[in-house]
Amino acid sequence: MQFKVGCDLAYEAHERSLFVFNVQASETESQTVVEDSLTITPELPIESYRMPETGNRCIRFEAGPGPVTLRYRALVDHRPQRAHASDIGETPSERLPPSVLPFLYPSRYCEADRLRHMAATEFGWMDRGHDRVQGICNWIYRHLGYIAGASDAHTSALDSLIDRAGVCRDFAHLGISMCRALGIPARYASVYAWRLRPADFHAVFEAYLDGRWYLFDPTRQAAIEGLVRIGVGRDAAEVAFADFIGVVDPGDMDVFIEAVEPPDVYVPTIDAISISER
Amino acid sequence: MQFKVGCDLAYEAHERSLFVFNVQASETESQTVVEDSLTITPELPIESYRMPETGNRCIRFEAGPGPVTLRYRALVDHRPQRAHASDIGETPSERLPPSVLPFLYPSRYCEADRLRHMAATEFGWMDRGHDRVQGICNWIYRHLGYIAGASDAHTSALDSLIDRAGVCRDFAHLGISMCRALGIPARYASVYAWRLRPADFHAVFEAYLDGRWYLFDPTRQAAIEGLVRIGVGRDAAEVAFADFIGVVDPGDMDVFIEAVEPPDVYVPTIDAISISER
Amino acid sequence: MQFKVGCDLAYEAHERSLFVFNVQASETESQTVVEDSLTITPELPIESYRMPETGNRCIRFEAGPGPVTLRYRALVDHRPQRAHASDIGETPSERLPPSVLPFLYPSRYCEADRLRHMAATEFGWMDRGHDRVQGICNWIYRHLGYIAGASDAHTSALDSLIDRAGVCRDFAHLGISMCRALGIPARYASVYAWRLRPADFHAVFEAYLDGRWYLFDPTRQAAIEGLVRIGVGRDAAEVAFADFIGVVDPGDMDVFIEAVEPPDVYVPTIDAISISER
Amino acid sequence: MQFKVGCDLAYEAHERSLFVFNVQASETESQTVVEDSLTITPELPIESYRMPETGNRCIRFEAGPGPVTLRYRALVDHRPQRAHASDIGETPSERLPPSVLPFLYPSRYCEADRLRHMAATEFGWMDRGHDRVQGICNWIYRHLGYIAGASDAHTSALDSLIDRAGVCRDFAHLGISMCRALGIPARYASVYAWRLRPADFHAVFEAYLDGRWYLFDPTRQAAIEGLVRIGVGRDAAEVAFADFIGVVDPGDMDVFIEAVEPPDVYVPTIDAISISER
Repeated sequence: MQFKVGCDLAYEAHERSLFVFNVQASETESQTVVEDSLTITPELPIESYRMPETGNRCIRFEAGPGPVTLRYRALVDHRPQRAHASDIGETPSERLPPSVLPFLYPSRYCEADRLRHMAATEFGWMDRGHDRVQGICNWIYRHLGYIAGASDAHTSALDSLIDRAGVCRDFAHLGISMCRALGIPARYASVYAWRLRPADFHAVFEAYLDGRWYLFDPTRQAAIEGLVRIGVGRDAAEVAFADFIGVVDPGDMDVFIEAVEPPDVYVPTIDAISISER
Repeated sequence: MQFKVGCDLAYEAHERSLFVFNVQASETESQTVVEDSLTITPELPIESYRMPETGNRCIRFEAGPGPVTLRYRALVDHRPQRAHASDIGETPSERLPPSVLPFLYPSRYCEADRLRHMAATEFGWMDRGHDRVQGICNWIYRHLGYIAGASDAHTSALDSLIDRAGVCRDFAHLGISMCRALGIPARYASVYAWRLRPADFHAVFEAYLDGRWYLFDPTRQAAIEGLVRIGVGRDAAEVAFADFIGVVDPGDMDVFIEAVEPPDVYVPTIDAISISER
Repeated sequence: MQFKVGCDLAYEAHERSLFVFNVQASETESQTVVEDSLTITPELPIESYRMPETGNRCIRFEAGPGPVTLRYRALVDHRPQRAHASDIGETPSERLPPSVLPFLYPSRYCEADRLRHMAATEFGWMDRGHDRVQGICNWIYRHLGYIAGASDAHTSALDSLIDRAGVCRDFAHLGISMCRALGIPARYASVYAWRLRPADFHAVFEAYLDGRWYLFDPTRQAAIEGLVRIGVGRDAAEVAFADFIGVVDPGDMDVFIEAVEPPDVYVPTIDAISISER
Repeated sequence: MQFKVGCDLAYEAHERSLFVFNVQASETESQTVVEDSLTITPELPIESYRMPETGNRCIRFEAGPGPVTLRYRALVDHRPQRAHASDIGETPSERLPPSVLPFLYPSRYCEADRLRHMAATEFGWMDRGHDRVQGICNWIYRHLGYIAGASDAHTSALDSLIDRAGVCRDFAHLGISMCRALGIPARYASVYAWRLRPADFHAVFEAYLDGRWYLFDPTRQAAIEGLVRIGVGRDAAEVAFADFIGVVDPGDMDVFIEAVEPPDVYVPTIDAISISER
C-alpha cells in the first residue's frame, strides 16, 4: 500500500532553544519514501542526519524566541513482508547476529532483568516464536488498561506492570521487557499508524524472530500492516518525535496517515508483519 | 488445642547494645498464655512492655559486649473462633470501627495505593468476604515462588509482585496490600506456626471481616488453626522478633511449637479461623 | 495566642459516596478548642470519632449524588511550650516510651530504612537534639525546591530526595525519614498555618526530643509558633484532610487562620515549639 | 606505556550452556593490541565478533556440562592523549556528532531523566568542561562509600544515590547519570586498571568533551592513565565481562595488569586522559 503521512507541529520558544525532531518516515527494505518535504518556519539553517545505529532520520536547529512550526508531508510506499505467524520461530541465542544483541539488554524503561521469573512462568511454557510474542501482547492487552494520563516521562515497564495501566508507549515497553526477559531481542518503534483513532504518533514494538524484526501492537488500536515506521531504539528514551533544550511550549499538533488506495472493506490481517531485516 | 511454644536465640554483641525482642505469645480473646518464662543470660535488668496499639509483648535491655542468649518457653491455650468461610462477608467502609481504619492505609512494605487498579481487576469481581481474601491468597500462591533469599529487609509488596518470588514475609505483604487496595483492613502477624517445616518464626496476615480479624497464610506452609500469635502491626516494619541498636552478630536460633495433644490424624481445616476481635 | 481557623470545602458527588474529613483542630495540652462548629450541607447524619492512637478528630458520612459542602469554624486557644532549642537533647532509645516507638518505624512515604547511611554521614556528626533536627530541616530547605506539582499521591521521601523538589508534604516526609534513620521518633502533622501565604492546609513534622514532640517546618513558609494542629500520623497516608470512596469531584476550597490579637510587629521566633507531650 | 594484561577464569557448567565473554583489550586510536591470545578449555569452536556500535571484542561458544576455563594474555601499547584539564570545555549540544547522542539518553542503570534538578543545582554553577565532570567525581567520592556487597545486579544510579554506597560499577553509573543530566554524553567503560589493589576488572566512565572521550574514575582507586579499555556501552547492562545462558557456577578468577617498564617512582597524573575520539 501507499500512504500519505505527515504532521503539523507548533511551538512557542521563550528563548533561543535547540529543537530536535524525528518525524520523517524511515527507509527500510519494505518501506520506501517516494517523496517527502519538511518545512520549518521561520526559515532557518537545519541540520539533517541519520542516527548511525538505527537509521532514524532526525533534524536539529536552533530557533527562538518566538513561534516555530514544523510541517511534514510524505508519500510512502509500504510493502511489508508477510508470513504465517505460526511458521515463525525464535532465533537461538548463539545465532543472534551481534547487531541485534543490544536489544536483549535491559534499558531505561524496560527493566527486563527484573522480569525473568515472571516472564518464564507466564510465557515460558508457550511454543517459541511469533505466537509466543503474540501471547505476551495478549497478556498485556488483557491485563493493562489503556488510560490516557496514567503515565509520564519517567514511567517504566515495572511501573506499568504494577499500575496495570498506561498508553501505547507503556504497552510497548512492557512487551519489549517481557521479550528480552525471555531472550528475544525487542525494540521500540514510533510510527504513523493507519486506522488509529484519533490520529496521533503511535508506539509499538518489534521482536527479532527467525532473522527479521516483526511488528507487534499490544494496544490493538491500529492496523499492524499499516504502521509506517519513523524511528526505532532501545525504548522511548531513544525515540522521541520532538525534543528541546530551552524553554519551549508546545502548541497545536496534527498528525495524519491516509491510504492512497484504501481497500473497500477493511479486514484485519492475521499475518505476521515485518518491514525490516536489520 | 494447647501448644508448647518457645525459642532459643543466641547473639554476640561486639559493643554495649540495645536489644528489643517480641517473641512472647500475645494474649487475645482466643489465645491464653497459661504460663510462660523468658530468660536472658547474662542476668540483666529487663524492661517488659506492651505496645499500646497492638498489645504486642516486648522486652528491651542493654547488654554487651559479649554473648547474649534468650530462652522462651510458653504453654498456650489456643481456641480460635471458627466459621464457615462463605458465611463471612466484608464490613462496609462506613461501618469500620475507627481502631481498624489505620489498617487500610498503605504502609512501608504494603503500597496498597499503587495496587488499586490491579486489585480491582483481579479480585473486584469476586464475591465479597472471606472467599475473596482467600482468592487473593490463592493468586499469590499460584503466582509467587517461595524462594529463600529472594528478598531482603527493603523488599516491599511491589518488589515481590514484580520478582514473583519471596518468603513468608513477602507473601503476607502482598496479601495485605491487595486487601487494603480493595478496602479491606489487613495487618501483618508474626506467629509460632504449627506444622511449619522446618520450624521457624512465621509471618501471615489478618483481614478484618464481619467484625473480626481472620487469619490467612498465602504460603500454605502451616496449619491455619495452629498459628500462635506473637505480634501484629501494619507490616514487618512494626513486627520484628528481634531488633538491635549496636553491633550484634546473630548466632544459633531454634524455634519450636508442639501440640500438647496432637490429633492422631491431621486433617487440614477449611474453616475460617480467627483469634481476635480487635 | 488565640486563632480563628476554618475552611469551606465544596464537592460534587457523582454517586452515593463515603466522605471522611479530618479538618477539626485537635485537642492537646497546649491547644484548646474554645468553640467550633462544623456544618455539612445537605443536612445528613454524620458520625464523629477520634482516632484511638492519635486523637485526630474525624467525621464520616454518606452523601450524593449531588453537591456536598463542609464549613468549619473554630476558635482555638494555642499556648505552645517554648524552650531554648540548644537545651533540648534526644531521648536515648532505651528510654523512649512504647507509645512513641512506632514513630521510629519506616512507613509508606518515609523509607527511613534506606536512609541510615546518608543520615549518618550528613547528620551523624551534629550535636544531638533539637539543633540536629533543625540541621536536617536546613539541609532540606537548601537542597529541595518547593515546586507545586512536583509530586503526587505516590511520591515518597526517596523520590523527593532524588527529584530535589516537592511541596510541604514531601519536605515533611523527608524530615521524618531522616529523623527516624537517626533513631529520633518523628511524625507527620497537618495544620492550620498562621502566616502561610497563600492560606492552605499545611504539613509539617514533629520530632520526639527530651520527652516532648517538637514542631519543625523545613519549608520555612509559616510561623512555627502559629501551627494549629489538625492531625498527626506516621505520614501523609494516615493524615488526609479529606478522603472519599466514590466518584467525587472537588470544587472550591478555602482555608483560613487569623490571630485574634495579632502582634503589631511580627518577629519570627527562634524558640523550640511544642504543643504536645504525647 | 606498554602493559601486560590478562585473566584466568574458571567455570563449572551444569548443562550445555552459552558463554559470552568480553575480556579482550579493545583497539582504539591510543590503544593498540600488540599481541594477544585467548584460550578456552576444553577446545571448542568459538565465534569472535565485534559489537558494531562500540567495537567491543566478544567471543561466544557453547560448552558443558563440565569445567570451562578461559585464559587471556595480551601486550597492549597504550598512549593516551593528555591535555590540561582546565583547557577542555564541553561540546555544545547542537554540535554533538550523531554517534554520541545515544550517550545522552537515560539507560537502565543511569536514570539521568530523574536527576536533572539535582545535577543542575549541584553542578550547574561550575565552569563547564573537564573540571565540571571532575567536580561530579569529587562529589561522588565524598558522598558515597565504597562498600563491597552494597549493590547487586539490579542496583541503579538512583539506588546508589540513596544508599550512598556502592562499588566501581555504581560509582560509574552515578557519574554517567549526572553528566547526561547536564547534557554531557557519558558512557560506561570496563578496564584492566593499573595500580588497582586488589587486581580485578574495574569500571570507570568516559565523558565526551571537546570532541573526545575523556576517562574518569570517581572511585580514585586506579591510575587514570593506566586504564586499558575492554568495553564501552551505555551502562553495565551493555558491558559484562562474562555472561551465560545456562546453569553455570563461577570458580576461580584471576585478573592482572603490569606495566612493562614501570616508572621508578609513581606520580599520579593531573592531566586529562583520553584514549578515544569516537
